[in-house]
Amino acid sequence: MSNQASSRFPQLTIWLPAWVDSFLADPDTVYPTVQDRMNIAIGLARHNVKNGTGGPFGAAIFDMDTHKLIAPGVNLVVPTRWSGGHGEMVAYAIAQQILQSHDLGGTGMPRLELVTSTEPCSMCFGATPWSGIRRLVCGARDSDARAIGFDEGPKLEQWVQALESRGIEVVQDILRTEASEVLQAYASSGGIIYNGRKD
Amino acid sequence: MSNQASSRFPQLTIWLPAWVDSFLADPDTVYPTVQDRMNIAIGLARHNVKNGTGGPFGAAIFDMDTHKLIAPGVNLVVPTRWSGGHGEMVAYAIAQQILQSHDLGGTGMPRLELVTSTEPCSMCFGATPWSGIRRLVCGARDSDARAIGFDEGPKLEQWVQALESRGIEVVQDILRTEASEVLQAYASSGGIIYNGRKD
Repeated sequence: MSNQASSRFPQLTIWLPAWVDSFLADPDTVYPTVQDRMNIAIGLARHNVKNGTGGPFGAAIFDMDTHKLIAPGVNLVVPTRWSGGHGEMVAYAIAQQILQSHDLGGTGMPRLELVTSTEPCSMCFGATPWSGIRRLVCGARDSDARAIGFDEGPKLEQWVQALESRGIEVVQDILRTEASEVLQAYASSGGIIYNGRKD
Repeated sequence: MSNQASSRFPQLTIWLPAWVDSFLADPDTVYPTVQDRMNIAIGLARHNVKNGTGGPFGAAIFDMDTHKLIAPGVNLVVPTRWSGGHGEMVAYAIAQQILQSHDLGGTGMPRLELVTSTEPCSMCFGATPWSGIRRLVCGARDSDARAIGFDEGPKLEQWVQALESRGIEVVQDILRTEASEVLQAYASSGGIIYNGRKD
């Protein structure tokens, strides 16, 4: 690609907040169980709210064989002024920069999973087959997000089956209670619930 | 948001290629008919291929009242190494930077439409309610994209109705033939058809 950028239109830079570096342990840390990995996603969601850097959603991509973290993601919608800045989308984008390919499932890639503190919305669901991940691990249900007023969008009722039919394993309800508590704490504290237009 | 960025993880910058500036006319140009506006989206798709800056998909956001262009978008998946870099996603992201809000449908915003050279895939469909646009205008059908081997993803069969029930008008088949020709020319010339994993 030509490295010449438009001078007429602005750019959008997606970057993780600095607190992520101190929240995460040494890059060589191994997270052997799915609960260990979900604790990272939930911790990212919790710290994102605490640090005022976005909504109560966290995600992380792990190597399915080494169980090391590849890339975290947090919701950045309001601070980046980008409606696409959901935790899952950010994790995909950052992992793709690290591994230098738009296809995390391509030849020579490690087998990767996305662990997300809440089940994906309609956009993040649709983005998942393009990402190249092999497994999607979810904490809170989309009904838990809806219960505090977040809109998960017009999703296929059979979204789990739709991913599995494309070779993406879906694991649900990992630390669902703990993941839901982050959502409930956010709502109780008066956090912004941004949604699509409905009028 | 704290302006301190992680130093451990890379960033992703989404920017339009420089040829967009010369392709587009003066910012005050008015595109009175829906065909005029679709011609811009199709032209963006065509020039994106010609300039080697991405796949054969273009989109543009227009003010529904003044009929001026707000922001263009082109597919940037391969050059940006970002599976989310579809034309519609890029147009939403750039327009949101211009109008400085994640919600293009918020108070004080002009009424906006997205004009896209091909109907949205599952991700871009899911992203549309979050963007804040009021109308989605489509050129080629998703079946036209599938016909040349692109995967449009697991979309709701009733996706048009799903958007319309959220107050987003959907207009189909505007210059469908011309829009499809860009897809066919791309396929005939041996352009990369990247897709989600299916194995």
